[in-house]
Amino acid sequence: MEYTERAIDQYKKMEYEIGRLKKSFSGKLRIGASTTIEQYVLPVLLSKFNKKYSDIEILVFNHNTMNVEKDVLSHKIDLGVIEGNPGQMEFKYIPFMQDEIVAIAHVSQPVSKKSQISLEELIHTPLVLREMGSGTLDVILSALQRHEIKLKDMNVKMHLGSTESIKNFLKSSNCIGLISVHAVSKEVARGDFQIIDIDGLDITRTFNFIYPQGQQDGLTDMFINFCMKNKE
Amino acid sequence: MEYTERAIDQYKKMEYEIGRLKKSFSGKLRIGASTTIEQYVLPVLLSKFNKKYSDIEILVFNHNTMNVEKDVLSHKIDLGVIEGNPGQMEFKYIPFMQDEIVAIAHVSQPVSKKSQISLEELIHTPLVLREMGSGTLDVILSALQRHEIKLKDMNVKMHLGSTESIKNFLKSSNCIGLISVHAVSKEVARGDFQIIDIDGLDITRTFNFIYPQGQQDGLTDMFINFCMKNKE
Repeated sequence: MEYTERAIDQYKKMEYEIGRLKKSFSGKLRIGASTTIEQYVLPVLLSKFNKKYSDIEILVFNHNTMNVEKDVLSHKIDLGVIEGNPGQMEFKYIPFMQDEIVAIAHVSQPVSKKSQISLEELIHTPLVLREMGSGTLDVILSALQRHEIKLKDMNVKMHLGSTESIKNFLKSSNCIGLISVHAVSKEVARGDFQIIDIDGLDITRTFNFIYPQGQQDGLTDMFINFCMKNKE
Repeated sequence: MEYTERAIDQYKKMEYEIGRLKKSFSGKLRIGASTTIEQYVLPVLLSKFNKKYSDIEILVFNHNTMNVEKDVLSHKIDLGVIEGNPGQMEFKYIPFMQDEIVAIAHVSQPVSKKSQISLEELIHTPLVLREMGSGTLDVILSALQRHEIKLKDMNVKMHLGSTESIKNFLKSSNCIGLISVHAVSKEVARGDFQIIDIDGLDITRTFNFIYPQGQQDGLTDMFINFCMKNKE
């Protein structure tokens, strides 16, 4: 670590310790998060955090996992929250929550009538998926590979560039989409979307907090603890 | 343009002409769109297009405007749809629709009670905005600058990395958010969000189709015409 970065980390630690003694907290927290987490998991936690610690300035950036890792290492951000498993020595990983990719259909469409289908049926059902190279599509393809199913075996109607566009597409399409359960839980609760269980297929992953090994920063730790306590 | 690219364009044109004569259309269309358009404007049009022309394979990528322009020039994609005004000689621009950035609040929050506020009131209202460098924030800052208002004059509570996270944050926060009207029109119609008019402040921009000057491609033109006819 560069000397200046170490000095900044020391300063932030001191600032936090003074705040802890005075029972008032201020400072700046820069968070990078991959899309599902940034759009659907963090916002509610951030609004609660902001109510409790209104003098802490928070900046959130939305990137894919690889770029969040890069920004953590270069100290552009203080904390990353990513979709992916621990794998790199440079980072300390703190498991945040489990994610599951689920099959969904809009309730206005005939395809939503079944709440469970077989893998064989999935293969023939019109699908809308994320673009090649997206982390979500990668985890789907790995899970299918365990059942020796390839992308070309499936009836893919379209590849779209975001979870939100998949949801909006499905409102007027008789396709199934495969997205994070966190991205659709509210619409499922409201009765707009139906989750369709795929018999024998589990697509799960873990959301992790990451920061550089050895980094000690009271504000970052406080935020992580807050999220762990307040997550739904 | 490279010889191979010209040959590919010629081939696609021929494929389209044959399709036109046979009254059946097939082929592949790669579209790059900036986030608001990709998430909220294209999905409904794409599902209608897919119903009519089910043999045309569509791939959609979500990037910021700068990267969409780059991908159009390098022929990674056939068509771009961007938030921004014509400015570069290399592109043919086709205006698609107008966008407006509006102030919104969630109806569960006290701040949503007023349907109109003055610029003076806006300055003191807690705000959530996009991150520095985002196209949406740039267009907001330019509009405020015309009234000699700077970012530091305002009561910004948080910067978030996407429109979707701003909407989710506002559900449990007494802040105002500034986002594209296209990103919130359905929730406003359903009564979840309230649009708050800001007296004397207009923040508008145009969505444009772009492709390289001189490119002739039946499929691209057909898609643009379809969007122009079917837009809401």
